[in-house]
Amino acid sequence: MNLALLVAYDGTDFRGLAKQPGLETVQGTIEDRLSRVLRAPDIETTAAGRTDAGVHAEGQVFSFAVDRAVSPEWLVTRLNAFRDARIVVRAAAVVPEDFDARFSAVRRSYRYRIYVSPTPDPFKDRFAWQVRTPLALAPMRAAARALIGEHDFSTFCRKGQGPLTRRIRSITVTGSRAGARTAVDGDEILIEPVADSFCHQQVRALTGWLVACGSGARDPADTPAVLAARDRHAAAPIAPARGLTLVEVTYPRDPFYAG
Amino acid sequence: MNLALLVAYDGTDFRGLAKQPGLETVQGTIEDRLSRVLRAPDIETTAAGRTDAGVHAEGQVFSFAVDRAVSPEWLVTRLNAFRDARIVVRAAAVVPEDFDARFSAVRRSYRYRIYVSPTPDPFKDRFAWQVRTPLALAPMRAAARALIGEHDFSTFCRKGQGPLTRRIRSITVTGSRAGARTAVDGDEILIEPVADSFCHQQVRALTGWLVACGSGARDPADTPAVLAARDRHAAAPIAPARGLTLVEVTYPRDPFYAG
Repeated sequence: MNLALLVAYDGTDFRGLAKQPGLETVQGTIEDRLSRVLRAPDIETTAAGRTDAGVHAEGQVFSFAVDRAVSPEWLVTRLNAFRDARIVVRAAAVVPEDFDARFSAVRRSYRYRIYVSPTPDPFKDRFAWQVRTPLALAPMRAAARALIGEHDFSTFCRKGQGPLTRRIRSITVTGSRAGARTAVDGDEILIEPVADSFCHQQVRALTGWLVACGSGARDPADTPAVLAARDRHAAAPIAPARGLTLVEVTYPRDPFYAG
Repeated sequence: MNLALLVAYDGTDFRGLAKQPGLETVQGTIEDRLSRVLRAPDIETTAAGRTDAGVHAEGQVFSFAVDRAVSPEWLVTRLNAFRDARIVVRAAAVVPEDFDARFSAVRRSYRYRIYVSPTPDPFKDRFAWQVRTPLALAPMRAAARALIGEHDFSTFCRKGQGPLTRRIRSITVTGSRAGARTAVDGDEILIEPVADSFCHQQVRALTGWLVACGSGARDPADTPAVLAARDRHAAAPIAPARGLTLVEVTYPRDPFYAG
């Protein structure tokens, strides 16, 4: 049967998602625990979104096949019995034979968290990026609007095998003080993009661009030209991994909704 | 001159506050950095509240003497130049000769954070205690009321050198859903006690008692008898360090308020 897992993790201490021999990765940890719980040595999973080292997830999805019937509730209990608060299985479900966590997904939602402060905050720094200068929200939102839609995102992606054309559905930029025009010391900003799929480091690169526009280092009116350049050097420095969380992966039919 | 520092830290990775040879402690780290920045090998500090390994602080206070004039602003900048987000100096101030971070303090405020969930939450677990069962708030508040005032807290303290009589000024118990009578899966509870001073492990022991009353394991009406027993075995298991934060230390005159 085919199964899917909904998994949350604090990515700080993992060497990224994808399994690598000898390194502690999210996928490696999940596969190791699945193999032990199911007493099947060769469980191979597919993940919905490949998160970099230090990136977190509230709703990563893994799919895999197993050659016998397994109770999803039992599996959740057993996987969480490792009592590792860094990585938790929130749900499991039986899925159709043709379900694939990656290729069946139709939307990915991410959240990038920023806090503005001259000094780091020990209680925010694990899951957010400390920016030292005030950030004006209007230019960040203007840059975000110019990125929505289908574009070749070569400027904002690490080179991969395939084409870098992606469709961004929305990017919201929310300040923690309602109505404030500029985020200042003590404020937070959430940048929440939704796309059919993202290419490698795209959300971190887009965030870096928005922050450069918010700080005044770059002009949001240049966004179309920067996109058209198809050159990473045209962009701003990418935002660090620590602020990024994969929030939700959407499928045509929610595998975890027992409705 | 005498100086005071206002310090925040994530206590997870420190072996407690008090310096110990060969171990990474909060006080040891602060003294080491002070000695390097001030080029004075033997800076000795006094801390307002001795926090256990794993306990955090938003507003710990250290005081120390230095044999030359030092600019507080310069000192903050230099101490934060170590760029260690686990421990941050929020402010520094010149204080009177007779100021002592510990003995001049008149109030300590702590916050204990609990989240109710059958599985751990990777984004809460560093700074909160996961409780698996629902917690009724009314019995927790009844137990808290019975603890307010001056009592011999031997039941709720690790044995120390001196007497264990303390005066608790207030304990507030706040659920994250306004008006809810019981904290259930997904809810949080804050327990916020204020006292002239606390003895060792007192807040964690009081929290353990409140949680035992909230879960139904113990009866809040027994609180006076449990106090009167003056015996740690009469109490409930103490709450783990991870949920506890020293929020604020109060002095007759706030050393960090430039008013």
